[in-house]
Amino acid sequence: MSNYKVKLANIKGFAFDVDGVFTDGGVIGTASGDLIRVYDSKDGFGLRMAYLKGYKTAIVTGGSSESIKKRFLGIGVKEEDIYLKSRDKVPDFLDFCKRNGLEPSEVAFVGDDLPDIPILKICGLAVCPADAVPEVKEVCDYVSQFNGGKGCVRDLIEQVLKVQGKWVFDPVAYSG
Amino acid sequence: MSNYKVKLANIKGFAFDVDGVFTDGGVIGTASGDLIRVYDSKDGFGLRMAYLKGYKTAIVTGGSSESIKKRFLGIGVKEEDIYLKSRDKVPDFLDFCKRNGLEPSEVAFVGDDLPDIPILKICGLAVCPADAVPEVKEVCDYVSQFNGGKGCVRDLIEQVLKVQGKWVFDPVAYSG
Amino acid sequence: MSNYKVKLANIKGFAFDVDGVFTDGGVIGTASGDLIRVYDSKDGFGLRMAYLKGYKTAIVTGGSSESIKKRFLGIGVKEEDIYLKSRDKVPDFLDFCKRNGLEPSEVAFVGDDLPDIPILKICGLAVCPADAVPEVKEVCDYVSQFNGGKGCVRDLIEQVLKVQGKWVFDPVAYSG
Amino acid sequence: MSNYKVKLANIKGFAFDVDGVFTDGGVIGTASGDLIRVYDSKDGFGLRMAYLKGYKTAIVTGGSSESIKKRFLGIGVKEEDIYLKSRDKVPDFLDFCKRNGLEPSEVAFVGDDLPDIPILKICGLAVCPADAVPEVKEVCDYVSQFNGGKGCVRDLIEQVLKVQGKWVFDPVAYSG
Repeated sequence: MSNYKVKLANIKGFAFDVDGVFTDGGVIGTASGDLIRVYDSKDGFGLRMAYLKGYKTAIVTGGSSESIKKRFLGIGVKEEDIYLKSRDKVPDFLDFCKRNGLEPSEVAFVGDDLPDIPILKICGLAVCPADAVPEVKEVCDYVSQFNGGKGCVRDLIEQVLKVQGKWVFDPVAYSG
Repeated sequence: MSNYKVKLANIKGFAFDVDGVFTDGGVIGTASGDLIRVYDSKDGFGLRMAYLKGYKTAIVTGGSSESIKKRFLGIGVKEEDIYLKSRDKVPDFLDFCKRNGLEPSEVAFVGDDLPDIPILKICGLAVCPADAVPEVKEVCDYVSQFNGGKGCVRDLIEQVLKVQGKWVFDPVAYSG
Repeated sequence: MSNYKVKLANIKGFAFDVDGVFTDGGVIGTASGDLIRVYDSKDGFGLRMAYLKGYKTAIVTGGSSESIKKRFLGIGVKEEDIYLKSRDKVPDFLDFCKRNGLEPSEVAFVGDDLPDIPILKICGLAVCPADAVPEVKEVCDYVSQFNGGKGCVRDLIEQVLKVQGKWVFDPVAYSG
Repeated sequence: MSNYKVKLANIKGFAFDVDGVFTDGGVIGTASGDLIRVYDSKDGFGLRMAYLKGYKTAIVTGGSSESIKKRFLGIGVKEEDIYLKSRDKVPDFLDFCKRNGLEPSEVAFVGDDLPDIPILKICGLAVCPADAVPEVKEVCDYVSQFNGGKGCVRDLIEQVLKVQGKWVFDPVAYSG
């Protein structure tokens, strides 16, 4: 993890798994069979800050619920950058990079379980929550001290934006 | 934080952010895209006590869900004192004060994240939960030992009402 | 708390507050404005055991949601013994006792907040979860080591039934 | 618990209680009276791995909600192997074994409360979460260090599949 601080300066985009990253891994099994999730408002604020400052953002998840799409559309992630039902995740990650003119080395990715490892090995900054599985922690540049759903996303975004001088909150711009 | 106990005696109204204050920051992303929240019954009891004893109460949140309004209407907050979609929060806070004949110095405010800082700097008693972001803690008169959604609201209200001799529970009045 | 073990032997009925007792105090504010709750399956099993062994059971809550009624009907509590919107709680508690031929001294009650204190002072065994408010703990015969929603109900029922030789699980009877 | 590692090598199927095993015991009491639950995505991934590698899987729960069935159908458990409203659980467990050509000694079972004990006494590997009731822990070959809903299912499946050389993640097969 020694050189992750150097990598922070090069990040132009963020991509994320959802379960265990934006959540504590819990999925609520509703009567319809749909799975819904509990997100964190501080993570949401961080992601909105990244969006407002011009960073590209993507979601790459095996989840299939439309509620995931709605959550991230509400924050500013573009519909075409939200990949649901992504089980072989690398092609989706590379599609996001290509369409947005980013090199994989310019994108930070946060994942927590085995299906995330292939992206973590090729992205520019590999990050996981404190409660990721051991195999994921081994391949990450940075293991957040925060668990999934408890601030690991905010932690990463805040570090990147601070290093790049972009972590400045403007209430009026934020309202727009 | 040394003089916050002096300030308790001057408070005539309470205003609150919602996410991370009345909740632990979690938002449940439902199938419709609406976000719903988990509130704390002990906080609710405290807020109802403040209402029954004649304190003015307000909600100033960036959240947009009608369920927020319904939660606080149920406790006794007046509809015009519930500000949803409030991102540049100071004007809403000042509107609440003016309409209720309160000076900002007579109102305690509880917030937990960057959008709350402008109000925290002008209100009469600046309070945050134990798990607020560091920038918020720095500007607060009092950092509760309780986290958001786990008693920080009750903690503040109980302290104010006790100092002012109003923390007296009457089952019959409460039923009314 | 010294003599609570003696009192266990005399209990013929159980009455409970809901929020902070059967739950951790969290209430989910749904889109309709209704509040729903998270119960504990081990508490539910304990309550069903009490029902199957012939104990009288009641719910006395300030909550107003029909979902509370449905939860406890499902376990075996009789509809007339579920008191919703109970804010001045003593009359409801006494009504339960009278209709079921119980003396208040034969009924254990579990509560966690100020509205529960009047019942706790007159019931046969006053119990609260570990995270009850201090004023409640002061008037209780027994403070469970378990928090609300995390086993305090099961703890009480199991102790009473064990002392009385009724904590015996029979899969076939349980299925009936 | 000394010989549980030997038993791992013989397991050909898995059966599970739900509440307190796949969940932390919490049940959300919805407005309709239906109970819904919060599952763990890492447990879900583990169960899907077991399914993809050819292990037989079953659910044996006292719960009655169709949402339970939908959750496990989505992971790959066969409809006829999901036993709802199972209170006298042994006959259901034996039915699962017989229909799938398994001896009880070839099946691991995870349970957490009294109704699970009869199966735990006859299955091939008796497992419980760290927060199971004491009576259950006493009859188990292995007490996971993880609580219900917090990884105990994943823990068991991962150990069995690793011992048998099957814990190998293939993104393409997983997508199928």
